[in-house]
Amino acid sequence: MTEDTRTLVLLRHGNSEWNRRNLFCGWVDADLSEQGVAEGRHAGELLAEAGVLPDVVHTSVLRRAIRTANLALDACDRHWIAVRRSWRLNERHYGALQGKNKTEIREKYGEEQFMTWRRSYDVPPPAIADDDEWSQAADPRYGLLESVPRTECLKDVLGRLLPYWQDAIVPDLAAGRTVLVTAHGNSLRALVKHLDRIPDDEISSLNIPTGIPLVYRLDAELRPVVPGGEYLDPEAAAAGAAAVAAQGRQG
Amino acid sequence: MTEDTRTLVLLRHGNSEWNRRNLFCGWVDADLSEQGVAEGRHAGELLAEAGVLPDVVHTSVLRRAIRTANLALDACDRHWIAVRRSWRLNERHYGALQGKNKTEIREKYGEEQFMTWRRSYDVPPPAIADDDEWSQAADPRYGLLESVPRTECLKDVLGRLLPYWQDAIVPDLAAGRTVLVTAHGNSLRALVKHLDRIPDDEISSLNIPTGIPLVYRLDAELRPVVPGGEYLDPEAAAAGAAAVAAQGRQG
Repeated sequence: MTEDTRTLVLLRHGNSEWNRRNLFCGWVDADLSEQGVAEGRHAGELLAEAGVLPDVVHTSVLRRAIRTANLALDACDRHWIAVRRSWRLNERHYGALQGKNKTEIREKYGEEQFMTWRRSYDVPPPAIADDDEWSQAADPRYGLLESVPRTECLKDVLGRLLPYWQDAIVPDLAAGRTVLVTAHGNSLRALVKHLDRIPDDEISSLNIPTGIPLVYRLDAELRPVVPGGEYLDPEAAAAGAAAVAAQGRQG
Repeated sequence: MTEDTRTLVLLRHGNSEWNRRNLFCGWVDADLSEQGVAEGRHAGELLAEAGVLPDVVHTSVLRRAIRTANLALDACDRHWIAVRRSWRLNERHYGALQGKNKTEIREKYGEEQFMTWRRSYDVPPPAIADDDEWSQAADPRYGLLESVPRTECLKDVLGRLLPYWQDAIVPDLAAGRTVLVTAHGNSLRALVKHLDRIPDDEISSLNIPTGIPLVYRLDAELRPVVPGGEYLDPEAAAAGAAAVAAQGRQG
């Protein structure tokens, strides 16, 4: 690391109970699975080994990201750093698909519709009803929002994430802090799209593995010194990304 | 709760590994024991049952308080609230006693000196040397302090805690937020001394039990509506306070 770079670490939460059960999760507040707990700790060990020690952590307001951050920071002895949380780092809202089994949705609507909902840049799934058991319309953590999202495509995620990037994360980077962002497959994909200027039609093929810190060194203009960043465990990251891609194909 | 009261919840961290081993801990960053983990979860269950749900949590920068807060908030489904941390909420710095066995110190220096160090309001233990293995002189979490404390009496704790109370906690209360402060035996004792205006020579007899939320309703002038506050589990709190007092007598 040279003097004029800033360090940003992206960490996707570990495996959740809902990943394990093959359900669309989105804004539903699933907990980590046992595997996910182990992934969180391991992420912290990787940070400690690499000497990449965060000064501040930004998380979503979802339990699986918060627990992953707590476990990782505990494991690298940085449990005491400043904490910031925002719904703007949440996973993509999966609309009416939330709570549904992925395989059943694929069989019911067909492969093409299924992949459009999962991977298109600007086509959101159908909106969830406020009285759906998996709606967040009455969740107190979103009580100050003028309206709670009812569905989102990746473009929507980028749109609501960027204000937080600009107003909360960039100032920390500018102050020279090593910043950890612990979030989700799609909110991190949106952030990587922004950082690496990935075109709309290419971002769907980017898969971010769970539990492996992705380190970006950013120059004074916040452009990545190494495009795509660098995983702290590249072999495990490649295997993890392939597994995420396979999950997309299989349902 | 009436409309014009503010709600402040004080929570002393659960039993730590160093409590269990009968060592002076202070600013040493001991982890929770298994019992302490259970206490943290139980504190959250008590908050949920009572419907006292924090909007913001303030913790020290010590692991045993941070983990207690994380466990309690997870258990009452408030893991997503705003988090603030400060060294000003830390346990009293025990000076050269840190890392020492309480029974050995009492036998070496006698009961009177032992109790003076533990319970006097304004007599600190001998200062710790910067090269002592239990010193925090080189701890990165205190890197921005002009000087790291080398010992403290309770009066010192109150002196460094009050600016944080006034500048960080009071504004949250004034904004109508339910505030959880997760901290330590002596930092909470100092705060209670301030809230309840307890004289210097009476505060030593106040014992705050671990893991049981102590709820203060404060009026517009931040005076307690019920002096001393109200424990969510009064019977367990009385037993816990007696146990803390006995620990003081036994070493």
